[in-house]
Amino acid sequence: MEKQRTVFFVSDRTGITAEALGRSLMSQFDGAGFRQVTLPFIASVDKADAAVARINATGIEDGVRPVVFSTIVDDTMRVIIHRSEALCLDFFDAFIGPLERELGMKSSHTAGRAHASASDAAYINRIEAVNFALANDDGITTRNYPKADVVLVGVSRSGKTPTCLYLALQFGIFAANYPLTEDDLQRGRLPEVLLPFREKLYGLTIEPARLQQIRHQRRPDSRYASSDQVRYEVERAENIFRAAGVPHMNTTHPSIEEIASTILHQTGIKRRF
Amino acid sequence: MEKQRTVFFVSDRTGITAEALGRSLMSQFDGAGFRQVTLPFIASVDKADAAVARINATGIEDGVRPVVFSTIVDDTMRVIIHRSEALCLDFFDAFIGPLERELGMKSSHTAGRAHASASDAAYINRIEAVNFALANDDGITTRNYPKADVVLVGVSRSGKTPTCLYLALQFGIFAANYPLTEDDLQRGRLPEVLLPFREKLYGLTIEPARLQQIRHQRRPDSRYASSDQVRYEVERAENIFRAAGVPHMNTTHPSIEEIASTILHQTGIKRRF
Repeated sequence: MEKQRTVFFVSDRTGITAEALGRSLMSQFDGAGFRQVTLPFIASVDKADAAVARINATGIEDGVRPVVFSTIVDDTMRVIIHRSEALCLDFFDAFIGPLERELGMKSSHTAGRAHASASDAAYINRIEAVNFALANDDGITTRNYPKADVVLVGVSRSGKTPTCLYLALQFGIFAANYPLTEDDLQRGRLPEVLLPFREKLYGLTIEPARLQQIRHQRRPDSRYASSDQVRYEVERAENIFRAAGVPHMNTTHPSIEEIASTILHQTGIKRRF
Repeated sequence: MEKQRTVFFVSDRTGITAEALGRSLMSQFDGAGFRQVTLPFIASVDKADAAVARINATGIEDGVRPVVFSTIVDDTMRVIIHRSEALCLDFFDAFIGPLERELGMKSSHTAGRAHASASDAAYINRIEAVNFALANDDGITTRNYPKADVVLVGVSRSGKTPTCLYLALQFGIFAANYPLTEDDLQRGRLPEVLLPFREKLYGLTIEPARLQQIRHQRRPDSRYASSDQVRYEVERAENIFRAAGVPHMNTTHPSIEEIASTILHQTGIKRRF
């Protein structure tokens, strides 16, 4: 039996960046299956010592040395982690030297400065953006569209809600969404209520087969999830987008991150933090 | 006047990881103000050429060479970006060599494998988690708590909703939340309806001054936002958590990412993707 190797994501903060980095790299090595362990908040000598003990014990257990992806900034803790019996890939080590030389200054070596610098105003904006997405989800009301940065339009289950929430949480963007109703689709044009906000509209579409799968999950064997219905809705929606010149994208394959980034990229909307 | 330098985050996918990395590093250099530009979806030779042209033009305009943080995986596009007149800090370059040696295999060099490998099942789970958070927000119902991974408890505006949504979007976790009502606070103990789910409860608390600021934003000069009211509510809520042995944390200073990661870390809940 092949030995399974463990990959550790070690951070003095949440470990989310270390995970994103490490996974992106490890995904380049298909053949090997890796066990993944995140060790967040390694922000004291005790915790760093405990992390090293765990990393070393895991290596002995696995019979193969672990890989450590570290985003720890603080020198003391970084040095401790590097003493572990693992391959340590240290993001800070790799890049801080070249940056110091380029900028002609010393780095401040303060853990988590990136997060800590988020001002109260930025935090409140982010929360307000989440509240905005919730209060303007699923066409509940169009009254707040003047305040919206973007209004996502599409058929039911085309990905509007998660995308709005992600835009709010990740970028602080005020995103509303409006589901095209049976009536809208039948009329074959943008509903009147959206016309004043035309320049804020962005359409989401999706492959019928995928939409059917998602809807089936929600309401098995319903007309709503039927092959004819989803095909009809998607076709009509796409025709509306094209006729009205609404920019749109297909959400079948991209992740929520990619959908949100594409919208930002294509519309030029500025993130709010 | 000092020259302002531009930092580019260049990626063949969303650029979100490049941004996180780059910002974390640049935050170590306080003195310098940097203009930040994200160039996502650099996934063709044309786009890479255009990116280089933009980077070079910016360097000339700024009078100081830009810094580029790249997470591009594909060799062709990576090489093009490296030809730009910038300091290129390349995440892939830095770590893929040591990893190939350690693992004794070649990497597959396939752009964005990390995202693309997300299975349909994982995607649907993520969407279901978002729907669960929405359907079980703000104590709408307690009927689905048996399906919840965690139930956040706290006073109004203590950060429950954004945290539930982040847990859903980032980790696929089924998170409900229950606001402690005036009645609950007065009685000074956990509401009956929560008792069967005691082991799933996690409390959020917040400094009264911050809570007042957030509530004031929402309903200026209301009793709801008054200093006496928020102090009373926070104190009673914390007493309830302590008396019932509900683990809890203060959300005043940490970011949403940190709150979510702390909950995972303290409760041992497993992420679902």
